[in-house]
Amino acid sequence: MTHSNHTPTHTHQTAPTEFVEANGIRFAYRRFGKPGGVPVVFNQHYTGTMDYWDPAVTDGLARTREVILFNNAGVSSSSGETPASFPEMGANAIAFIRALGLQQVDVLGISIGGFVAQEIALQGGDLVRKIILVGTGHRGNDMTASRSTEIFSETYEPPEHLWLAVHFAPSQVSQEAGLAFLERKWRRQDRDPEVSAQTVAAQGEAIDKWIAPDENALAYLKAIVQPTLVVQGSNDVIIPTAHSVTLQQHLPNAELVIYPDSNHGSIYQYPERFVAHAEQFLV
Amino acid sequence: MTHSNHTPTHTHQTAPTEFVEANGIRFAYRRFGKPGGVPVVFNQHYTGTMDYWDPAVTDGLARTREVILFNNAGVSSSSGETPASFPEMGANAIAFIRALGLQQVDVLGISIGGFVAQEIALQGGDLVRKIILVGTGHRGNDMTASRSTEIFSETYEPPEHLWLAVHFAPSQVSQEAGLAFLERKWRRQDRDPEVSAQTVAAQGEAIDKWIAPDENALAYLKAIVQPTLVVQGSNDVIIPTAHSVTLQQHLPNAELVIYPDSNHGSIYQYPERFVAHAEQFLV
Repeated sequence: MTHSNHTPTHTHQTAPTEFVEANGIRFAYRRFGKPGGVPVVFNQHYTGTMDYWDPAVTDGLARTREVILFNNAGVSSSSGETPASFPEMGANAIAFIRALGLQQVDVLGISIGGFVAQEIALQGGDLVRKIILVGTGHRGNDMTASRSTEIFSETYEPPEHLWLAVHFAPSQVSQEAGLAFLERKWRRQDRDPEVSAQTVAAQGEAIDKWIAPDENALAYLKAIVQPTLVVQGSNDVIIPTAHSVTLQQHLPNAELVIYPDSNHGSIYQYPERFVAHAEQFLV
Repeated sequence: MTHSNHTPTHTHQTAPTEFVEANGIRFAYRRFGKPGGVPVVFNQHYTGTMDYWDPAVTDGLARTREVILFNNAGVSSSSGETPASFPEMGANAIAFIRALGLQQVDVLGISIGGFVAQEIALQGGDLVRKIILVGTGHRGNDMTASRSTEIFSETYEPPEHLWLAVHFAPSQVSQEAGLAFLERKWRRQDRDPEVSAQTVAAQGEAIDKWIAPDENALAYLKAIVQPTLVVQGSNDVIIPTAHSVTLQQHLPNAELVIYPDSNHGSIYQYPERFVAHAEQFLV
């Protein structure tokens, strides 16, 4: 446990990358914000690192609570291999959280990070107090309506504009919000390395397992009894918006928020609105 | 115009019933809360009067803005006949609002009050700034899944417990929230008269017209360009929850919030949560 750098003066920009060992993995993490309450542990999307979060979201939440960003096993600056299933990623995340000496956390996950957050809740017992699931779905997702494969295999100039297609709607207003997000995202200078081919392959394999058709796919949601805030864009082209409605309908205690004219990264389009909703929910 | 009684010291309990004339109708209304901003005009559900609102909601919103309750034409203490269509009810509501000398308002509607709120927005031009639609639907609603007819034709002892079936979920927690709501609702002593048989019949006829199947039923939603907050319970047995998702998907600028373990009157189950959401949205 290292607490020396967790002063409230650190931000998304300045929080140093620290390391903690668990499960034989050296986990990279950054920790900042208002200490003393239940921290929020952020779980990242496909191929993302700690640098892929929106400072407007992380620093926004950090005004009222402690924020913990980390790279799961094998991802970017964390050591080890990325496992090829979400239950294993969830187990690694729990080992990381416990290695920090934390007894209780809130978890936030975006996209496949939302799958990991669900696994943390399922496996973690009392470890998880509340859950925020953004742009995500449930096991046995019907991905017929997803344009994910097409969007991730296209080329973009600059390549970073992939994220305008993934996270933002086609409207001019949404695309402009996307450019503003990318500008915020790139402010930090000392950046995490991009993920390895091993991580990309393992995450892809884990996704295939997660979305495999299964008649009883939704049964596990009954076991996630924590208060959950499901957040989604009006037209998520990566994980169809309808899946968030299904999550709300099948989770025992879930509130759903859908934002207008938005896509997979709705919280990056409406960071202030989301931070206000999240603060209210996490009280 | 009467402004004498609109001091911020009045509340849901104490605001006197005032009257204003328009369209040949003498409209009964109550006005309280923080003056100076854009007032919120509340549009009531089937067979309801000004006394059917939840003081926890109205006084909650009144902390930050002016709240206007009223009875539409023919309803309770307002004179005239209740018309048998929502476009006519919307036109009457607009006449009432303009008779107060107001240039711009926010409108909130619950259930069929949400139909009226949509009509006010469609006909009112610049009159409406923002809209909150609670437990409501769109024209051409498929009401197959609704239990409305069954629930309104059963007998309840005391009769007031009808509203536990209409507004609250079967869970113990929700039913207890319902009893607390009824207690709040009945605190005010000088009460509006109950609605007439003419009102009940005309509202019923208007509902039949509104829900008549129509292939192009949703087209009108494109014309409601104002920012809209759609609020719903997880399982509305009166106007099925799915209709709120459809509203969000077809309105040009709508945010959707669905609360857990709740029914038609979700805002009466979660008044603090709703007031916080509404305050944030109405900024």
